[in-house]
This record gives sequence, structure tokens and C-alpha cells, in this order.
Amino acid sequence: MKINCDLGESFGSWCKGQDELVMPLIDQANIACGFHAGDPQIMENTVKLAIENNVEIGAHPGYPDLIGFGRRPYSCDLLELRSILLYQIGALQAMCSSLGTKVCYVKPHGALYHSMMKNEEVMKCIVQTLSSLPFQLSLMVQASTEHGKHIDIASSLGVKLIFEAFADRSYVDHNNLAGREIPNSVKHDSDEIFLNIKNMKENHQVVSISGEVIDMNMDTICLHGDNESSLLALEKLHRVGL
Amino acid sequence: MKINCDLGESFGSWCKGQDELVMPLIDQANIACGFHAGDPQIMENTVKLAIENNVEIGAHPGYPDLIGFGRRPYSCDLLELRSILLYQIGALQAMCSSLGTKVCYVKPHGALYHSMMKNEEVMKCIVQTLSSLPFQLSLMVQASTEHGKHIDIASSLGVKLIFEAFADRSYVDHNNLAGREIPNSVKHDSDEIFLNIKNMKENHQVVSISGEVIDMNMDTICLHGDNESSLLALEKLHRVGL
Amino acid sequence: MKINCDLGESFGSWCKGQDELVMPLIDQANIACGFHAGDPQIMENTVKLAIENNVEIGAHPGYPDLIGFGRRPYSCDLLELRSILLYQIGALQAMCSSLGTKVCYVKPHGALYHSMMKNEEVMKCIVQTLSSLPFQLSLMVQASTEHGKHIDIASSLGVKLIFEAFADRSYVDHNNLAGREIPNSVKHDSDEIFLNIKNMKENHQVVSISGEVIDMNMDTICLHGDNESSLLALEKLHRVGL
Amino acid sequence: MKINCDLGESFGSWCKGQDELVMPLIDQANIACGFHAGDPQIMENTVKLAIENNVEIGAHPGYPDLIGFGRRPYSCDLLELRSILLYQIGALQAMCSSLGTKVCYVKPHGALYHSMMKNEEVMKCIVQTLSSLPFQLSLMVQASTEHGKHIDIASSLGVKLIFEAFADRSYVDHNNLAGREIPNSVKHDSDEIFLNIKNMKENHQVVSISGEVIDMNMDTICLHGDNESSLLALEKLHRVGL
Repeated sequence: MKINCDLGESFGSWCKGQDELVMPLIDQANIACGFHAGDPQIMENTVKLAIENNVEIGAHPGYPDLIGFGRRPYSCDLLELRSILLYQIGALQAMCSSLGTKVCYVKPHGALYHSMMKNEEVMKCIVQTLSSLPFQLSLMVQASTEHGKHIDIASSLGVKLIFEAFADRSYVDHNNLAGREIPNSVKHDSDEIFLNIKNMKENHQVVSISGEVIDMNMDTICLHGDNESSLLALEKLHRVGL
Repeated sequence: MKINCDLGESFGSWCKGQDELVMPLIDQANIACGFHAGDPQIMENTVKLAIENNVEIGAHPGYPDLIGFGRRPYSCDLLELRSILLYQIGALQAMCSSLGTKVCYVKPHGALYHSMMKNEEVMKCIVQTLSSLPFQLSLMVQASTEHGKHIDIASSLGVKLIFEAFADRSYVDHNNLAGREIPNSVKHDSDEIFLNIKNMKENHQVVSISGEVIDMNMDTICLHGDNESSLLALEKLHRVGL
Repeated sequence: MKINCDLGESFGSWCKGQDELVMPLIDQANIACGFHAGDPQIMENTVKLAIENNVEIGAHPGYPDLIGFGRRPYSCDLLELRSILLYQIGALQAMCSSLGTKVCYVKPHGALYHSMMKNEEVMKCIVQTLSSLPFQLSLMVQASTEHGKHIDIASSLGVKLIFEAFADRSYVDHNNLAGREIPNSVKHDSDEIFLNIKNMKENHQVVSISGEVIDMNMDTICLHGDNESSLLALEKLHRVGL
Repeated sequence: MKINCDLGESFGSWCKGQDELVMPLIDQANIACGFHAGDPQIMENTVKLAIENNVEIGAHPGYPDLIGFGRRPYSCDLLELRSILLYQIGALQAMCSSLGTKVCYVKPHGALYHSMMKNEEVMKCIVQTLSSLPFQLSLMVQASTEHGKHIDIASSLGVKLIFEAFADRSYVDHNNLAGREIPNSVKHDSDEIFLNIKNMKENHQVVSISGEVIDMNMDTICLHGDNESSLLALEKLHRVGL
């Protein structure tokens, strides 16, 4: 079970997150590619930081919406989606290969992630885009009961899926996170987050907002690096050697 | 002797140039990468058009200056320059490799091109950036009397140079184009442009604004696709089989 | 009956429309404000051109979507909508007042216009925003059967409405233009456009795509300046002195 | 003697500064206008915060350079400068007048401020732009030995100047701040900043980096709200009732 985190989300002179503190504590860095966050220098510096910490690099492409941080629905057809994916993944891949490493996987960001999870056509378009590239790229998606269907879509095109669950977000049910407008949808109790991680690692389970225990097939746990409590939970995880 | 042209310079719903007419008439397409012109969909469509016409693809990266079309000086250090080059080249390379082709060379655009020709540190930075990538990329530069010096910079890092001369721009001397503010700096007489191309192809010569005949070591001739007269000259070139 | 046209829709070095030819032929210029088209210099130059031709100036604010030309749905709440309206209207108003003129009315652009016509809350927000400003601003909306309802919304806040009909677009029915994906939704026959204008001016009527004659309460006729046929129709209108 | 501070410098979801803490402690808020920082919603919220705290509002226009935070030289002619000033000032003015207040003065930001202080043509262009508007706008400039010359430029066009000195930046001499690359150019000792403010208020003096005491004709003291030590100094100032 790995830990992944969205990083490189600063922009110009604006900082977001604490990448230097988070990077040593995780296994997979989802690096923003300049459309919803990040800029070329921040991207390259984040790649260097990942290399120094021996962390796997994922491209974290988003919709072209800096002001809305890529969390706003964006109206585009699949041809445009394909082009904006290739653009962002390629930009990061060039930085990685220039520095002797590579992009291992792609995790869509924000509204694009939600669109992928809700709309099979969008997931297919993303999978086709990845499979068209001459280097191997896995796709990180949300662990859910649609697990089998998603594997079918991806495997037919030779793309490996990485299933992730969220330790610092609340689940409504197996497939759905609580919306950000719902109280405690983003968890701010580091002990609770720590226990969630532990439960995920040891039992492959999450507990929903209503208390239901949900078994979940997952490969990696997502934590949000700009959440102080998540950082505290990660640090504890390291201290106790989990 | 090849013919190269800057293409993919439209943006969103704004058209520039006549790419469909120009592409069949040239050998090398310098494709804008979204910073000074172009957007992801336009880039991908231009790559497809190049493939259909069997035209070599070059990345045409510029400064991040849409309003100024990348012709405005831009203040950045070499670390930022490296990052914005990798970003743009990588974006185009991903589109190319997804479509079964590749970027063959890089030609910096506008103010970045002028900065490279004037400032040895900038040229070195560009050469280093290209040489750091795991695929072979030539660098297109202006043919000039500094030919030898430029080869030294590039060859020490294993980068091949492509020297270009301009058939629809006026030369002040061997090294310098007439500034765009000077009358007839951009030529609008298709016969004159045609004769320039012919003279370049047959004699490797340009004629300066003062009438001086200049011998020039060149591999490719640049024409501007948004110049109607250049297009006419190109069409005549094809008709007469040159 | 006036003629209005969207102008100032160029961006940076990219031209759109033929503002110099169109301006002398119209009564009201809807000037883009930099979010979907236009930039500060283009805006100011368009204001100057309107002044020279004694044309009334309207602000033509849009969603922040340069690549999509403001025609793409944009997800924002009414507080953000208010802010982006004030920003754009204010920017144009400062240019106008610096040059001794003023913004007379506001006509939302593209997807924002459609959102206003479909969603009463959006129209109310726009009306409230206009009425909050210390200078008188009318709102240009589409003439339709909802005429009375729209007057009620606006008059309660002291905002005057200007109703417009489209002479170079096809109508499905009284309230709806044919979508841009439908053949002949944008008319390209200058005679047909000319007759539409004549019919609108003399009879306050439009003819729908199915041939139905629709009586329409209208104050101004919109023509698209980037449509060659509309320009020809306008020129004929001037020649015949209509 | 007033206190002024640059505020509204967040962008989208990225925070900069602590506007809620700073606003109650100052007299004049220089509000970013969306070109180097700020966006329409942040601008309007900052205007509201200024109104609640009875703080005078200044427009803080900058070059269109989000990534460089407007600190990067920008190449534009005076016509473009005029247009980008009108655009930004007008945008803020509309928000202010919609909320029942107004822009009182203009303080150029970053590289534009430095360009104004170094280049008399730029200062003249700014003064002319302000004087062309139908509402009274003062111009905030750096207190310096060129005081008299600057008053001459401005008063001939009826523009009032506001002279400011910097309490949390180091002076090299009467006219020049120490560059940001020089150690301690930005002060981080709140006691030192507090004493600077006190010295400025009581004696109209600054002390240069070499220890020289400089008499300075100033109307307002600038503090940087994103500097923790400046905020502490401001809080102490309020506690002791200075």
C-alpha cells in the first residue's frame, strides 16, 4: 500500500502546500502541470525534489482553470480533452526525462477526475490517450464498486489502473466522497486521519460518514499536503514505522 | 536546401496564416507550442497536417506572451528558460509520439530567437536543454558569420545545428535582419521573394538592403506563412519544380 | 430601429472582424472587454473608432475564456458573476471617460448572454449589478415572448432594456436562435440578410427557419461584423439609404 | 502621517498576506487589480474589507505578469501603458462605486513603480492618464530628492502626489531601496520596523543601510502585509496608540 499526494500546486510567487516536508513521507507525487496549478519552474523543481526523495512521479493534469484551481466543471469535447492531456503529460515527461527519470502514472485533477469517475466516455478517452503514448503510463482512479468495469476499460488498451482511497476526506458510500460543502468532508483531526491510514493499510477498509465499514480494493492512499492534519498524520506514520 | 515555415500560430478562434495551403509546399514546419501562439488543439491539428504532408516537425517555443506574440523581450534567468523550453518541447513531443511521429528540431521564436542569436549564454542554455533530452533534437539558428562559434557551442554537447536564412525579410548585413520598423523589412513582392529563394537554393547567397551580395552557409530557407506574397512565391516554386 | 454589432474582438496580434469597415455603418458598438476577446489596447482603439464615427458604446462582457471565445458554459456563482461584470464594465468605462465619452449599455456575450436569457436569476444579477453603478446603463437582451417578464425584472431596479433581434442568424421560434451546429444557422447570403433587416425595420418581423412570420418587439438589429455577407448587407443598407 | 499597505494580492485559491489582520491597522489600502495579483472576486472582497475598516482605497495596477508577480521588467510603449492603467483603475473604480465608495489614489506596483521612478516619460504618462479621468486621483510615488521635479510633472496636470517611504525595506540612499537580492533589504525584525515607523512619524527620517540619517518629505509609510514582522510592528503601533 502506497501513499500519494498532490504536489507542485504553487503558482508563481504563491505557495500552496509544504512540498519539502511532505515529499520525504510519501511514495507517489502527483505533480500539477500548469493548467490548474504549477508553472514550468515549479514543475521542474518538484520533479527534482521527487528524485531526491526517491518518490515515483505522476502527472496531475487538470482543466485550464487557474482561478478555479481546476475544481470547476469545464466544457470540452473529447478531442480537446485528449490534446490538453497530451500537452500536460508531455511537458512533465520532458522535464522528467531531462533529469533522468520518468512519469510513471497519470492522475487527473479536480473536476477532470470527477468527470472521469462519472463519465465512462471520459475515462475511455483518458485511457486511449495514455495507451497512444510510447511509454508505459498507469492511470490512477478512485477505488469504488465500479472497479471491475474500470479494469475492463483500461486493460483492453493495455493500461494498468492504480486504485486510490482518501484518508483525509469523508466517504458517503463506497463510490462517493462527501462534497466539499459538507461539514467534516475534509478531515482536520490528525488522529482520525492516522487511524484511517492504518485501517486502510491493514484492513483495506474505509469508514463512511454514517459509520459503515466499507471493504475497498486499493493500491494507494491519497493525502492532501496542504492539510496540516494530514501532514501530522503522515509524520506520525513515519515515526511509528508504518 | 529545405524550406521551413512557422505554423500553428492560430489561437482559440483566431486564425493566423493559411496552414492548409502552406503545409504541402514546405519541408519543415515550426509548430508554435502555446506560449506565444497555438493552443493544445491547434498544436495537435497542426501535427496531423504535417504528418499528412510528410513534413518534418520542429518545436517552435516562445516566451509566455500571447498578447505580444512572443516578440517582446522577456526577462527570465536561464533556469526559467530551461523549464519553459522543456515544457513546450515536451508538450509537442507527446502529441507527435502519440500520433506516431516525433519532433526533429527546435527553433526558438521571436524575442527568444533574437536573444539566442545575440547572447551566447542563452544559446548555450538552449543547447544544454536539448542535449539533456533522451531523443535527438537539432537546433535551428540563423545563418551568420558566427557560424563557426555556434557550431562549437552545439557540437561540444552533441547537438546538430540547422542554419536558416530568410527569403521574405531584408538583411542589413550578414548577421542582421532589418528591424520590423524599417520599410520593406518584410518583403511583399512575390517575385522578389521567389528570386531570393532561387538565389539561396542555387548560389547560397542573400542580397542585403544596400545591394551587397552575401555568401551564406545555409541548410534551410525560412518563409512566413502569414505573408501572402511568400505563399505566392512558394506556389510558383512548386509549379516550376524548384 | 438601430443596428448593433460586436466589435473589438481581435486579441493581441490576432485580427477578427473588420472594425474599420463596420463602424461607419452601425449605431451601437458592443465592445469586448478582454475576458473572451479584446485586450486593453484593442479596447481603447475601438473606443476611439466609435467616437470618430459617432457610434454609441456598449460594454460586451463575457466569461473568462479566451480559447473558447466566451461561447463555452462557465460555472460561476452570482457573486463571481457580479465581480467579473463590474471588472469588465469598469475597465471600458474608464477608457470611455478618459476619452470624453461613456458606456451607454451592456450586452453580455456568448454563453453569458445565453445564460442570462435562460436563467432569470442570472438576468436579475446582471440587472442588479448595472443598477448599483452611479451611471445609467441599459441592458441589451434578446427580443422574445418573455419581453414583459424581462421588463418587470429590469424596471423594478430602474434599468432600461434594449431588445435586439438577429438579422444574420436563423430563428427556430420567437425565443430561440438555431444552434451554431445547425446548417444555415448563421446566414451567409447577403441578400437574405438585407431583406431580413428591411423586414425588421419596416415590419418588426422575423421569419423563422420553418418559414413562420414572427412579430417581434425590437429596438435594435444585431449583425455579426466578422460575417462578410452581413457587411455586404450593411453596405447595401447604407447605399440605399435605409 | 498615514500607513499604506499592498492588499488583495491573493489569486484564485492562492492566499498571500493576511488582509483581515492588516486592514484594521492601516489608513490606505493599495488594492491589486488582477494583472500581477488579485482577481475580480478578491478585488471586490478587498474593497468591502476596506469599507468596513474605513480605509482609503488606492488602485495598485501592475504589468500583466502573474507568474512574475509584476516584479519583472515589461516591455511596452506608452500607449499600451496608458491602456493597461485605465483598464485596471476602471475595473477597481466600478467595484468601488458599486459599493458606494471610490478609488482615491493610484500606486503603481513592482516593476511598473520602479519604471515610473526611473523614467520621467513613464511618470508623465501615468500622470496624464490619471488627469484624463473625470474623477480626482492622486498618485503615490516614492519620497526622494527628486521630490520637486515630480511635483512639477504632476501639478502641471492637476494631479496631487502622495510621497511614501518604506519602513520594512532598507535604503541605500535617499532615492534608492536596497535590491531584494541584498541581505536584510527586506527587514524581518519587528522592533527595527517599529522604530523605523516611529522615526518616520516623529522626525520624517529614515536611516540608510550604512547608518546615514536621511531627512525625507513623506506623507505615508508603506509596510508589506505579507511580512510577519511588519504586521507585528503595526500591531504594536496600535497598542501603544501611535
